[in-house]
Amino acid sequence: MLSPTRYHDRFVADHAAVRAVLDEALFCHVGVVVDGRPHVLPTLHARVGDTLCVHGSTAARILAAGRSGPLPVCITVSLLDGLVIARSAFHHSLNYRSVVVHGDARLVTGAAEKGRMLDALVDRVGTDRSAQCRPPTAKELAATSVLAVDLAAETTDVALKTRTGGPIDDEADLVLGHWAGVVPVRLHAESPEPVCDLPIPAGLAPSLR
Amino acid sequence: MLSPTRYHDRFVADHAAVRAVLDEALFCHVGVVVDGRPHVLPTLHARVGDTLCVHGSTAARILAAGRSGPLPVCITVSLLDGLVIARSAFHHSLNYRSVVVHGDARLVTGAAEKGRMLDALVDRVGTDRSAQCRPPTAKELAATSVLAVDLAAETTDVALKTRTGGPIDDEADLVLGHWAGVVPVRLHAESPEPVCDLPIPAGLAPSLR
Repeated sequence: MLSPTRYHDRFVADHAAVRAVLDEALFCHVGVVVDGRPHVLPTLHARVGDTLCVHGSTAARILAAGRSGPLPVCITVSLLDGLVIARSAFHHSLNYRSVVVHGDARLVTGAAEKGRMLDALVDRVGTDRSAQCRPPTAKELAATSVLAVDLAAETTDVALKTRTGGPIDDEADLVLGHWAGVVPVRLHAESPEPVCDLPIPAGLAPSLR
Repeated sequence: MLSPTRYHDRFVADHAAVRAVLDEALFCHVGVVVDGRPHVLPTLHARVGDTLCVHGSTAARILAAGRSGPLPVCITVSLLDGLVIARSAFHHSLNYRSVVVHGDARLVTGAAEKGRMLDALVDRVGTDRSAQCRPPTAKELAATSVLAVDLAAETTDVALKTRTGGPIDDEADLVLGHWAGVVPVRLHAESPEPVCDLPIPAGLAPSLR
């Protein structure tokens, strides 16, 4: 049911499709190994060029692990597109797009790069929002860690998987009287709930206007 | 920003909240360790009582790993509820609910239990759908593996984390003229796209009607 597309040698060719998934999804799942066991945490991510980054408080276990050197991570970004209803139980499925990034994350230590990445993370919450709020203080910057994975690195593997279209039923089942098709699903923004009575700025994300 | 609630000793007390998240989310992220590295894959999940299950083709690496004994997994289920827009960059956030399950998954081998779990998985795609389509053949059952984690087991750790409400800005920032608030987001079902011209059955999921 899956259409895996591996990128070992053709990251550039499929760059646009990978970027589209990374940029549309509002959060990712970061996997790390701690004491031999898998840990998977949801968190906001951002892409800055060919670098994928996540952040967290410096206390976070997942980020602390990155202090002692490159941290093996798997960052998975998934978008659900539809429920696939088949005539047979076996062929029910989900339509989705996902990007799985296997790589070694580095702790971002340069002030300029860290600043750019934190701006990018804020800009995921609202377009250009980082320029329309109070910037971080030195203390806030110090309290935040950023982990980055370079998507184009030799040691990084980026896999795009998608399922699209209707159910693929067996020929023999096509005569059955069961309804079959796809129910598309989509993440929608609802009306903003302001905590202050200022008008919603025009520069915010489309979802905010 | 997070409100972690660990369940070591009070799984029963918070059962309902955990169940609600598992039952609302249409897919999960399964983390396993392969050759010492983390792997995180999105997949459909279902809850049958206090058992959480996922499935896949028997060829899938993640499931094959479960053949040699209990497989350490981390199954994370996340629901995005809103974008949190603060006056300061630092306090931007996401509202969400997530359940992180650390446990040892077992390969489900009993025919009756496997059948119940596969039905439950199909019922995630459409309410009671497993009773309204062609049931799996013996060959199809053999081609599908089911992994299960017992949520109430001693060796299972279930953690619920949520963030709700507006931004928590610093006192000093409240006078700033930046808009602040929450943009709620929600997964919506759109109009079904049928591949056959039968009327949509009344018994399908509300999202289908």
